Amino acid sequence: MSHNTIIKKKLASNWFALLSDVIYLEIEKIENEYNKKKNKKYKYFEIKEWKKSLFKNEGGGKFRILRNGNLFEKVGVNFSEVSGKFDKKFKSQIPGTKKNSNYWASGISIVMHMKNPHIPAFHFNTRFISTSKNWFGGGMDMTPCLKDKVEEKFFHNKIKRMCNKHNKSYYPKYKKLCDNYFFLKHRNETRGAGGIFFDYKKNNWQKDFNFVIDVGLCFLDCVTSIIRKKMLKKWNKKQKNIQLFKRGRYAEFNLIYDRGTKFGLSTGGNTEAILMSLPPSVKWS
Amino acid sequence: MSHNTIIKKKLASNWFALLSDVIYLEIEKIENEYNKKKNKKYKYFEIKEWKKSLFKNEGGGKFRILRNGNLFEKVGVNFSEVSGKFDKKFKSQIPGTKKNSNYWASGISIVMHMKNPHIPAFHFNTRFISTSKNWFGGGMDMTPCLKDKVEEKFFHNKIKRMCNKHNKSYYPKYKKLCDNYFFLKHRNETRGAGGIFFDYKKNNWQKDFNFVIDVGLCFLDCVTSIIRKKMLKKWNKKQKNIQLFKRGRYAEFNLIYDRGTKFGLSTGGNTEAILMSLPPSVKWS
Repeated sequence: MSHNTIIKKKLASNWFALLSDVIYLEIEKIENEYNKKKNKKYKYFEIKEWKKSLFKNEGGGKFRILRNGNLFEKVGVNFSEVSGKFDKKFKSQIPGTKKNSNYWASGISIVMHMKNPHIPAFHFNTRFISTSKNWFGGGMDMTPCLKDKVEEKFFHNKIKRMCNKHNKSYYPKYKKLCDNYFFLKHRNETRGAGGIFFDYKKNNWQKDFNFVIDVGLCFLDCVTSIIRKKMLKKWNKKQKNIQLFKRGRYAEFNLIYDRGTKFGLSTGGNTEAILMSLPPSVKWS
Repeated sequence: MSHNTIIKKKLASNWFALLSDVIYLEIEKIENEYNKKKNKKYKYFEIKEWKKSLFKNEGGGKFRILRNGNLFEKVGVNFSEVSGKFDKKFKSQIPGTKKNSNYWASGISIVMHMKNPHIPAFHFNTRFISTSKNWFGGGMDMTPCLKDKVEEKFFHNKIKRMCNKHNKSYYPKYKKLCDNYFFLKHRNETRGAGGIFFDYKKNNWQKDFNFVIDVGLCFLDCVTSIIRKKMLKKWNKKQKNIQLFKRGRYAEFNLIYDRGTKFGLSTGGNTEAILMSLPPSVKWS
């Protein structure tokens, strides 16, 4: 491996680790601003670390989870840095593994399920993967339960502005990829209100990395703005029910289609960390 | 197609249709025995029919669903008889499709999610599939939330006795297939307490058909006995919660592994009928 690649991996994984700290602390802060207003007890994230292998040095991860919050019903903030060899079956789906099935991957992924059905569920992920090729992937999207056109516009505008700073082609291209990806074929339904999604991004490393950093910061900005705007909005049982059924679709997507889930479960990732994305409570009709 | 095959299909699908009527009526009866005791309103099944194609004559199905019962929280009783051509990708997984990708399939499948966490969830399915080969498949199994060894023994003994009437090798063989099939690899957990499961059964048509009939009758017998024994048993919130988390595993299994779900979604089956097996309410930690 080139000296250059070692540095890239280090820079990428350092960023993902740092961002996961920043975001989980910000979430804990907002949760407890809410709790203070409502005279509720302070809520903490749990922190769990895991190793991929007990015997080999193949990395692992750290996941932080806030359960049963009064504002955040369930949030997982996942950081991982793992390496190994792809098995034969999985290998054919991954670029750069023809001659050598070794891989290294680091990433951050976050899913937030909110107690208040007025606030969408949010999902964010960025990753750097290295085989004989190196590339970034990731994205962010939101899944509202109750339609709010103003909020959708706000979310997409923020993302668009961030993308445009890097390249005018990014937003339309990555928005489309997101719409195609977060689609439940068997229901003929989108999962949510979209966002952006990109993969196999390997043009100019430094530029790609800057973009990935900005995607993370933009996610934090969008999410905290939307949550702060809506956190005190009242809801009724009917609206909560709509949310629970919508979450059923979310679970269907993650278990049937999601590539990250499949990647994780196929490469011996930590099941608890991978399925942390599943909603805390769900209904099916 | 031989005259013989036409008769076999007709006999099989007639049996599945008849059995689905018998079982849903029996369930409605038990639900309303319970409702009468508890001074609750009479509950009915909804009946929905669907066609696979609006333009071609490729069959369809009838599904009956009881929602929000006081004893049966959600039960689906599905009958279908469909035909068509397998697409290339799916074909390679199905016997007898090398020269000709036509298929015909009829079956019954039932999933019951009970309100009372003392009563297990039950699953039953039998089917007859015809390509250039003809075979039966199916099985039954139960998923308790709260351990009850006596009940497990009762269930397995009933099934064993029924199997032994046909062939002493069936029970151990099909029990093992069931244990292997209803296993969540990513959790290293069984889905439930097992039962029997068989596929590609095509020895002697008449004997196989008799066995399939007996599997259906045995299911009805087991389920009604277990439910009647436990329907008045009280439960608390903690026990209900254990059930909701156990149902999360059930949903994971059906969406990640279940072949029937994949078969249905890949062959243009009715999504609502296929995903009827999903529990009405679920929790993930």
